[in-house]
Amino acid sequence: MTTPRTSFIDTPQRVLLGPGPSDVPARVLSALARPTIGHLDPVFLQLMDDIRSKLKQVFRTNNEMTLAVSGTGSAGMETLFVNCIEPGDKVLIAINGVFGGRMKDVAERCGAAVETIEAPWGQVFDQDKLIEAIKRVKPKAFAIVHAETSTGAHQPVDRLGAACKEVGALFFLDCVTSLGGAPVEIDAWGVDAAYSGTQKCLSCPPGLSPVTLSSRAVAKLDARKSKVQSWYLDLSMVRQYWGSERFYHHTAPINMLYALHEALSIVLEEGLENRFKRHRANHELLRAGLRELGIEYVSQEGHHLPMLNAVKIPDGVDDLTVRRKLLNDYGIEIGGGLGAFKGKAWRIGLMGHGSSRRNVALLLAALRDALR
Amino acid sequence: MTTPRTSFIDTPQRVLLGPGPSDVPARVLSALARPTIGHLDPVFLQLMDDIRSKLKQVFRTNNEMTLAVSGTGSAGMETLFVNCIEPGDKVLIAINGVFGGRMKDVAERCGAAVETIEAPWGQVFDQDKLIEAIKRVKPKAFAIVHAETSTGAHQPVDRLGAACKEVGALFFLDCVTSLGGAPVEIDAWGVDAAYSGTQKCLSCPPGLSPVTLSSRAVAKLDARKSKVQSWYLDLSMVRQYWGSERFYHHTAPINMLYALHEALSIVLEEGLENRFKRHRANHELLRAGLRELGIEYVSQEGHHLPMLNAVKIPDGVDDLTVRRKLLNDYGIEIGGGLGAFKGKAWRIGLMGHGSSRRNVALLLAALRDALR
Repeated sequence: MTTPRTSFIDTPQRVLLGPGPSDVPARVLSALARPTIGHLDPVFLQLMDDIRSKLKQVFRTNNEMTLAVSGTGSAGMETLFVNCIEPGDKVLIAINGVFGGRMKDVAERCGAAVETIEAPWGQVFDQDKLIEAIKRVKPKAFAIVHAETSTGAHQPVDRLGAACKEVGALFFLDCVTSLGGAPVEIDAWGVDAAYSGTQKCLSCPPGLSPVTLSSRAVAKLDARKSKVQSWYLDLSMVRQYWGSERFYHHTAPINMLYALHEALSIVLEEGLENRFKRHRANHELLRAGLRELGIEYVSQEGHHLPMLNAVKIPDGVDDLTVRRKLLNDYGIEIGGGLGAFKGKAWRIGLMGHGSSRRNVALLLAALRDALR
Repeated sequence: MTTPRTSFIDTPQRVLLGPGPSDVPARVLSALARPTIGHLDPVFLQLMDDIRSKLKQVFRTNNEMTLAVSGTGSAGMETLFVNCIEPGDKVLIAINGVFGGRMKDVAERCGAAVETIEAPWGQVFDQDKLIEAIKRVKPKAFAIVHAETSTGAHQPVDRLGAACKEVGALFFLDCVTSLGGAPVEIDAWGVDAAYSGTQKCLSCPPGLSPVTLSSRAVAKLDARKSKVQSWYLDLSMVRQYWGSERFYHHTAPINMLYALHEALSIVLEEGLENRFKRHRANHELLRAGLRELGIEYVSQEGHHLPMLNAVKIPDGVDDLTVRRKLLNDYGIEIGGGLGAFKGKAWRIGLMGHGSSRRNVALLLAALRDALR
């Protein structure tokens, strides 16, 4: 007797040129499908150690507290705030897009007294103005987005760590979209706590959030008077599983960690500098092609993200019609606008494995057709 | 030029007979490795709808708010408390093992006023005593573990929903280990909120937590005076992504959801009743074999979980020596004791795909050798 198969859904092979997830290389998909083993298996613990060592290289940090949180990028964001912020702590957040706004929401849910500094969507902040605000507000933590996925703006942040240190503030950095595609210098920039996602320039499926905490951030965690409000994201316990104690906390997402390990291996085999150069080159190529099509960027000139091109939808062009044509006729996904840019912008990702001359050529050809 | 491959770690093919993760069938591993698509792709949204419909069948519920939380089982636990409990709410929690204790910790971090009722580890609660406590305490919510993974005790819960309803309490049920291996009757038992894990009797890798909320639980969420303290687990937003709005919240763990969809398909193709019968039969077979080896259960007679056999380590036998021999010579993982049972008990799982005559025969043979 054969059993009928229930409702098989055939997932298509897309070309993912949106704001993430990005296309995942076959090597990573194969790793994902390796047989599951136990979360306390000696081989798995060795794999975790190797993930940590590779993440430290990719983050360019010596932080011992570097690990993958068992949730997507937003869980990484929440991990920073629930662990390093206590109720009543003053937090300064820079907002020029969706993800800065999300940090404010998350911080407030942790009981933080949030002050904000804002810039128009698509613009970056002048570091001098940020430094001035940090020195004026003297917060317990200052948080900013390195690569605003909603606007395509690439924020310079190299001078902010020193200012934070001067006033005793922790420096939080969202590098969900930049990590593995553009320089992220945790130690050199004096970043105290950062989080990323796996589904952008690391070219791994979504589901994990790499995070790293400096010794100053860990000291803040250790000095807490109150328990971390999230049990699941409590790093004072999670670190005992990732550390030599190997104390059971929650069951790690085993197969996702296989995939992350493989994805990080690919990143390091290519080399970070080569990878950044490739992202930059394909971005320039796409930009030149978009210019020929008369398409402009919404992000500030000179501050475009190399892995995420946020562009204006040309006048008289219908957002959904074009995106549907790209998806249905070409199997290409690009992103629509978020928040203030909804219906006004497209977000074209060239992330990780997906940043290739082939994808640039394909997208330009398809877009030319769709705009005809 | 060939690039050297960085630190490949060859993960072995184990036989997972511990407390989870359990062995994952090839069909599910294949689904996991399908090419990633976007979290707003029409095909993916269709897949989510189908996951919801299948989860409702497996939970035996009509609850519209049935979905998979983007984290492991403990994230599901936290989801219930952060959404349905507000600071100051009285919560009654039954504790007879690690996971009841964990619920207390999680509830307290949400600001709940927790009262507990306790039973010795391995024992189940008499439902009459629980009903008496529910009526006396009159909590806003009562929470209990259906299948205590730390003790192997199978808690009867069919009469608790009515008592909770009588005093206006929500009834929370942890069915991490029972779902898909023993009857879980969300609607018939009057359960208001339940969570499970994918890596037990559903035979999917760890990384997602199926949850379901009744209309009473949703009403409690809707009537909140304060924001849910976790942004990531806030069901008032998550439901807009799983619902017809399809409002972007966080990037879903796409490939894990492919796997869950396939795993649920397998469960429903076998049929829930057939599956429960198989778990029961293999449990009886193992039990008879363990009896021949002189090995006794730590869980209460008549209340052993069919998918998790918690047994006493025989006098004079060294825990680690035996478990290492099973792992190294046979590639078999069984679990050690947790908490009060550390070093005193083994936990032998026959979960989902792993509940087979073959595994029972293999384990008994290997154990016989290891104990020699």
